[in-house]
Amino acid sequence: MSVVIRGGTVVTAEHSFEADVYCADGVIKAIGPNLEVPANAEVIDACGQYVMPGGIDPHTHMQLPFMGTVASDDFYTGTAAGLAGGNTSIIDFVIPNPQQPLMDAFHQWRDWSAKAAADYSFHVAITWWDESVHRDMGTLVHEHGVNSFKHFMAYKNAIMADDEVLVKSFRRCMELGAMPTVHAENGELVFQLQQELLAQGITGPEGHPLSRPPAVEGEAANRAIRIAQVMNVPIYIVHVSCKESLDAITRARNEGQRVFGECLAGHLIVDDSVYRHPDFEFAAAHVMSPPFRSKEHQEALWRGLQGGNLQTTATDHCCFCAEQKAAGRDNFTKIPNGTAGVEDRMAVIWDAGVNTGRLTLNEFVAVTSANAAKIFNLYPRKGSVSVGADADLVVWDPQGTRTISAKTHHQNIDFNIFEGRTVKGIPSYTLSQGKVVWAKGDLRAERGAGRYLHRPAFSPMFDAMHKQGELAAPKAVAR
Amino acid sequence: MSVVIRGGTVVTAEHSFEADVYCADGVIKAIGPNLEVPANAEVIDACGQYVMPGGIDPHTHMQLPFMGTVASDDFYTGTAAGLAGGNTSIIDFVIPNPQQPLMDAFHQWRDWSAKAAADYSFHVAITWWDESVHRDMGTLVHEHGVNSFKHFMAYKNAIMADDEVLVKSFRRCMELGAMPTVHAENGELVFQLQQELLAQGITGPEGHPLSRPPAVEGEAANRAIRIAQVMNVPIYIVHVSCKESLDAITRARNEGQRVFGECLAGHLIVDDSVYRHPDFEFAAAHVMSPPFRSKEHQEALWRGLQGGNLQTTATDHCCFCAEQKAAGRDNFTKIPNGTAGVEDRMAVIWDAGVNTGRLTLNEFVAVTSANAAKIFNLYPRKGSVSVGADADLVVWDPQGTRTISAKTHHQNIDFNIFEGRTVKGIPSYTLSQGKVVWAKGDLRAERGAGRYLHRPAFSPMFDAMHKQGELAAPKAVAR
Amino acid sequence: MSVVIRGGTVVTAEHSFEADVYCADGVIKAIGPNLEVPANAEVIDACGQYVMPGGIDPHTHMQLPFMGTVASDDFYTGTAAGLAGGNTSIIDFVIPNPQQPLMDAFHQWRDWSAKAAADYSFHVAITWWDESVHRDMGTLVHEHGVNSFKHFMAYKNAIMADDEVLVKSFRRCMELGAMPTVHAENGELVFQLQQELLAQGITGPEGHPLSRPPAVEGEAANRAIRIAQVMNVPIYIVHVSCKESLDAITRARNEGQRVFGECLAGHLIVDDSVYRHPDFEFAAAHVMSPPFRSKEHQEALWRGLQGGNLQTTATDHCCFCAEQKAAGRDNFTKIPNGTAGVEDRMAVIWDAGVNTGRLTLNEFVAVTSANAAKIFNLYPRKGSVSVGADADLVVWDPQGTRTISAKTHHQNIDFNIFEGRTVKGIPSYTLSQGKVVWAKGDLRAERGAGRYLHRPAFSPMFDAMHKQGELAAPKAVAR
Amino acid sequence: MSVVIRGGTVVTAEHSFEADVYCADGVIKAIGPNLEVPANAEVIDACGQYVMPGGIDPHTHMQLPFMGTVASDDFYTGTAAGLAGGNTSIIDFVIPNPQQPLMDAFHQWRDWSAKAAADYSFHVAITWWDESVHRDMGTLVHEHGVNSFKHFMAYKNAIMADDEVLVKSFRRCMELGAMPTVHAENGELVFQLQQELLAQGITGPEGHPLSRPPAVEGEAANRAIRIAQVMNVPIYIVHVSCKESLDAITRARNEGQRVFGECLAGHLIVDDSVYRHPDFEFAAAHVMSPPFRSKEHQEALWRGLQGGNLQTTATDHCCFCAEQKAAGRDNFTKIPNGTAGVEDRMAVIWDAGVNTGRLTLNEFVAVTSANAAKIFNLYPRKGSVSVGADADLVVWDPQGTRTISAKTHHQNIDFNIFEGRTVKGIPSYTLSQGKVVWAKGDLRAERGAGRYLHRPAFSPMFDAMHKQGELAAPKAVAR
Repeated sequence: MSVVIRGGTVVTAEHSFEADVYCADGVIKAIGPNLEVPANAEVIDACGQYVMPGGIDPHTHMQLPFMGTVASDDFYTGTAAGLAGGNTSIIDFVIPNPQQPLMDAFHQWRDWSAKAAADYSFHVAITWWDESVHRDMGTLVHEHGVNSFKHFMAYKNAIMADDEVLVKSFRRCMELGAMPTVHAENGELVFQLQQELLAQGITGPEGHPLSRPPAVEGEAANRAIRIAQVMNVPIYIVHVSCKESLDAITRARNEGQRVFGECLAGHLIVDDSVYRHPDFEFAAAHVMSPPFRSKEHQEALWRGLQGGNLQTTATDHCCFCAEQKAAGRDNFTKIPNGTAGVEDRMAVIWDAGVNTGRLTLNEFVAVTSANAAKIFNLYPRKGSVSVGADADLVVWDPQGTRTISAKTHHQNIDFNIFEGRTVKGIPSYTLSQGKVVWAKGDLRAERGAGRYLHRPAFSPMFDAMHKQGELAAPKAVAR
Repeated sequence: MSVVIRGGTVVTAEHSFEADVYCADGVIKAIGPNLEVPANAEVIDACGQYVMPGGIDPHTHMQLPFMGTVASDDFYTGTAAGLAGGNTSIIDFVIPNPQQPLMDAFHQWRDWSAKAAADYSFHVAITWWDESVHRDMGTLVHEHGVNSFKHFMAYKNAIMADDEVLVKSFRRCMELGAMPTVHAENGELVFQLQQELLAQGITGPEGHPLSRPPAVEGEAANRAIRIAQVMNVPIYIVHVSCKESLDAITRARNEGQRVFGECLAGHLIVDDSVYRHPDFEFAAAHVMSPPFRSKEHQEALWRGLQGGNLQTTATDHCCFCAEQKAAGRDNFTKIPNGTAGVEDRMAVIWDAGVNTGRLTLNEFVAVTSANAAKIFNLYPRKGSVSVGADADLVVWDPQGTRTISAKTHHQNIDFNIFEGRTVKGIPSYTLSQGKVVWAKGDLRAERGAGRYLHRPAFSPMFDAMHKQGELAAPKAVAR
Repeated sequence: MSVVIRGGTVVTAEHSFEADVYCADGVIKAIGPNLEVPANAEVIDACGQYVMPGGIDPHTHMQLPFMGTVASDDFYTGTAAGLAGGNTSIIDFVIPNPQQPLMDAFHQWRDWSAKAAADYSFHVAITWWDESVHRDMGTLVHEHGVNSFKHFMAYKNAIMADDEVLVKSFRRCMELGAMPTVHAENGELVFQLQQELLAQGITGPEGHPLSRPPAVEGEAANRAIRIAQVMNVPIYIVHVSCKESLDAITRARNEGQRVFGECLAGHLIVDDSVYRHPDFEFAAAHVMSPPFRSKEHQEALWRGLQGGNLQTTATDHCCFCAEQKAAGRDNFTKIPNGTAGVEDRMAVIWDAGVNTGRLTLNEFVAVTSANAAKIFNLYPRKGSVSVGADADLVVWDPQGTRTISAKTHHQNIDFNIFEGRTVKGIPSYTLSQGKVVWAKGDLRAERGAGRYLHRPAFSPMFDAMHKQGELAAPKAVAR
Repeated sequence: MSVVIRGGTVVTAEHSFEADVYCADGVIKAIGPNLEVPANAEVIDACGQYVMPGGIDPHTHMQLPFMGTVASDDFYTGTAAGLAGGNTSIIDFVIPNPQQPLMDAFHQWRDWSAKAAADYSFHVAITWWDESVHRDMGTLVHEHGVNSFKHFMAYKNAIMADDEVLVKSFRRCMELGAMPTVHAENGELVFQLQQELLAQGITGPEGHPLSRPPAVEGEAANRAIRIAQVMNVPIYIVHVSCKESLDAITRARNEGQRVFGECLAGHLIVDDSVYRHPDFEFAAAHVMSPPFRSKEHQEALWRGLQGGNLQTTATDHCCFCAEQKAAGRDNFTKIPNGTAGVEDRMAVIWDAGVNTGRLTLNEFVAVTSANAAKIFNLYPRKGSVSVGADADLVVWDPQGTRTISAKTHHQNIDFNIFEGRTVKGIPSYTLSQGKVVWAKGDLRAERGAGRYLHRPAFSPMFDAMHKQGELAAPKAVAR
């Protein structure tokens, strides 16, 4: 089976050009004007449209067991919804419980993910430390194609990694050529503020952002970055939501440090007024960490994308329905943290980013796909439109519109944080592994069609950093 | 007994003017031209000289039990050496062992300090946490005139305060109107680097700065500052040694946060090449934490003083002689940390600061005396030349010179980090409590003459911050 | 005639204390508890009130000929209104026309100012350059007590100083020990934007801020600061209105450069929505340069005051009534630039600054009085409460309230930019030269009572800078 | 004629991969493993080597008439030397004299450049302003493929553009979709300092850097950037030599502004000690503007490249021999400004950048070729290794070494600022338009083979900026 996309403008992170794209055997076989293709190739008319690499969401949590419940989108429904939105790959998270062997957790998640409709990979969280963790990190890198590890600096008394864990794990990452990533919030401060707010009688969702002010995030981001600096390892900060953590990234990048930042579609668009909504269900539906922020932070995030200090956009897709959120009706600290978005990310960023002139077309591809592929060493298999690459593509109709709603979305959740927003610019076709899986509203996702993506360690920057490290190695003084 | 200082130029943090100063009963009784004074008043001729508030060293450790030994300058010898250098007050530290009741430690230190020759006060360190610590902090503030608490972010497995202690203690400080202060170094990183360096065979003093690079300090400074921001309490960073922690302070101050920074005379003058000296004794004699830094950091610290982002200068005076330092001959992590300086601070800062045009005369007074008095709420009793203030004064001879040497200094230590430096600008007379205790080389310090200084809580900035806090207090949403 | 102020709390820039203040012969004669004073001394009861140095407004334009008209408050009405508001000194501006001899203009202004009711001084503007300007700057400094010169970087085709004038005048200032000051707006950009806006049909006051966006001010501030850096002279930026110019100041101060910044009461309180008001008269009444800014800039200015990057507050008091403003009804570039405020500055800054906890009492004194006195070398004659200082004092009632209105103010203008604002904290008494000139609503200003203030050159920082300059002087290489 | 490069690792700005590259008809025809090619194709063995896009030097001055003489490398010798160093394109400058019609100058330069051995293009300088300049800018863009204009902020009384010219030209650039570029130095300050230094008797080359301190450059860079911000046009700062101008760029980029920065190979490597060399010829040979800087600036520039705040590297290649430099023997302001480097740029940046781990291989390609192509809209014709691109390639031998010397270089100048430096990593083969023009030391440059490159206006970022501009367009208030 083969497909040719005719007449569109191919847009990559580097440039734009008019060309047909021919896909067969799951990969891109040819790119060029007026391609000659087999007669039986399916033809997609992309005139007036853009042909771009399918989106990569580097931050999702499908069917995550969390805060006493399980996220409602599983690997099938979640990845399928992504395809409907032009998103063809996700990187999800294996999150061992403290004391749980990493390999046990990894295999558990691999089982769960077998039903995925699109390609996927895993970051693995380091939630505790002993020699087995040190060893299993090596096994994961060498045998299972894991090249990134996640650290939660929040969630005290649960999965929080303290400085000792960070230092040891970052050191191990350096040895392995793997990227450490962090959820940056100071868990001690959050815990203290939560207790104080509850004691003051603030039990509703409005307490959520009050317990996690921007300084809490900025501090943790800076700490993680400086630990990475001392350990001479690159670092990736997930879901940067505020000026404070962006500034920490920016400072380090301006010094030449290898630091990367991700922001979420939600943080770019939604502000913190939602938490003060009188309807508990509405307010609680927005509870995620870090919380949505006041508007000046959104402007800062866009500037971060423009200036290159933020490289990727994601969703932290982690769905909980109203009845799950109700667990925290009397105590905001018990509201399961998470919101959806894997289906909406590309369209809302296009609408708010490209239509406004904040981003060029090429920058759009960079921040929705190519940069994630480069940072996590999937490029050019993913994130490019090039011969030999996986035929994960989206045909983008800049004139198409959609009014986002929980009533019509494909995500398995009863709420949408972008509800009612009409976006201009939507996917008309999505191809995954060379197959048309979304065609003008028709979702053809196939359970289990997704493949686990092995990601090799030692992306190019590691070589450079090791070289620098060797030149700077300390020496003893002869006495 | 009374003294009149005639013909000098009075220099305060605000301005300079020609006037006589008359002291009696331990305080300044009159300031003005051609004062009429009792016939029996001792007359000091200050023509061509400056009359300034005596120095306040807000960071000393007399006879501190530390790293298996005890600092060699005790409260008598140390304060006496200070008087020889124009320094009339110190603020030392009570440092309880973890689990030791605060009050026990406090009384222990009060006993030790009874022999002091000059006035003194104490910061009290918070090295652990339970309800008794919370309670004793109140007792110290309300009954013992303590208005500042110290937190060591370094020294893992010893006196290190983790984030939980910081958060709880800072919150308690806010309630009490007391200033939290921190030794800012990330103890986990230091510990990890120490282990790695030793494993690499780097056991000499050159390992000391390698185990404590500037990023380690900058991270901790930023963390403490942001915790203070969230807790709405001012904060004071002791011994800022590098650009990175200065930058953390500067960022916060530029945002209007109430943050204060202290730097040490040694860090302003001495650079890190000393640790690579082939003579172990020489190198080890310079081991203190944070370590001396490369030259660009010294320039940064001067700029910090000029721009007002650093307010005070101190010494971290903590003497260990060669035989004490020898404990770490085979392992730099066992070298007792500390250097001297209480006698030299004013002269080296004058020489390197005023003679070079980096500081005005008034700024010199501010950074050696007045600012410390204001921040720790001793002003104008200390730090000013005003009627009613304690007659703690120094008559400064801008033409006098001294070549600093361990052979001639009064400090009880066999080494001087400023050895061989000839300074221009020295104290010709020092008055403590209205008595001449240093007169052109004649040291007349009196054992036990020093008084314990009660420092009231709630300096003016606390009122402002509490007002801000009340206006910003969180509110519950009615649902 | 003498006055004693009894029972108040004296507040200076350094500290606060309870004391009586006795004034006679125009100066402060004694300060202390329960002062014994002559029986005939007038007694002011200050119980529960603060006794502070009278305000110094370092930026006013009384009866300025400008844009085809003359400012409506003259030196009498303007200074009298100041006294009603607790302001006891102003520094106004002599502004020669290009080609007009400086001395001619200076004498003209001295004539106009003879009627002033309060003490005053003059900055002199450098609006052109030739040898006579160079010479007259010396005459003004040496013979007329001028120690500051003003440069307008805006107002192209009128009084704008280009880079050549700035460079030459700053160099001359350095020689003379005089402070260069600048109105920082890039006049070329303003001119270009004005032409474009008019061409687009935007002729109303809403065009005013559009023609002077913050970047225009930030650029000019940075330029002036860097020219001062190269010329090794301190610099003072008047009416900093936005984050951009504050940032330029902050950067330089963080580097240790001697840079000072002034902000206006109006810029701290009023935002730029006023220019889009449908009523031309209302909108035009707010036209001044730089314009009022959006709210985030106001927050930035407060932070600048808190962090010490801005040192003074002023008003740029320059009154034009509605009929004068009407000159620009069809062309916003013809609206005379200026607003009032000398009467309101202290109260609005107290209300918005002290009552909110943004500023301590001592900081209030610093930014309304003491810092201006220090920077322009009038301290401690002005700006202090000390024996021997001019008895220019304000007794401040923190419980008193006033609703500001053009109907009740004493300024000679039919509009007030703070109209309707009720402030808590007002002057109950003002003393000028030891006389009560404002007593609980009774204004007793005396025409011509004000004295011209000679300000000596070479304030202390100049000595330090010259010393630095000498040490850094370039040397030829022997070849 | 066709060429196949076999067995190398293709390195682009995005990634690296093993592949053969087949070139014919001047372009790349195929890329892939084990390519089948015509039997007569010339085969280059690239085993163990890298195949990269040929270098683009976006800043050269061949045979420039300047300061009373003419640069000694003409378009043939200069481009040929570039080919020997792996550099396959230059962008040179047309510099009209003030009052000279732009089109006259443009045609003059086109005549001179006809002999070029490699492809080239022109930035056109705007050195004066009237309606004809406005018109000719349009002609150049629309008819002659010019998409960038240069502005000299230095060289007072010669080609300096004042703010009025900058404002008007930048506005015109915005309309035309052309990139304004600036030489950022404050010409007034330079002129003043030059006069002062000469008056002080400092006439030798050591006066050159003293007359152009970093603040002079930082100021101008900031000014140009802010004018561009207000005019809503991107901007490119040529030869960023110091931290101060890098900081100006960084600040703006962090805010999302479209600002680009170029640095020179010389500024990355050479420091300012050269100007104090006792030999006039040696010192004078290094005179260029901006001058070489002290070492901390070089570190800053490397960090700028790493963090992405600087995008391109160039040389400002402008050769003057000793006898030309001698014109300033008694007056450093008369030494013709310029140094060579087009032949050495790639190797010295590889050696100091890649071998040290400062840059990855991909970043090396980005900063020596791809980024310049993107910014000046030549991509992917230049700057890429892709099918259809011009076959301008360099085969890079990472093990090869060369000791740089004026005795062996191909540049027509008697001096080399990198004299004696041995670099590891050199071009083994250079292809221009598909022809081998450099083969292991054999230079086969052909006079006149170079083509003039038309560069289209409106690169993608212009679309985004225009969109932003439209959304932000000012509106009149209805009154």
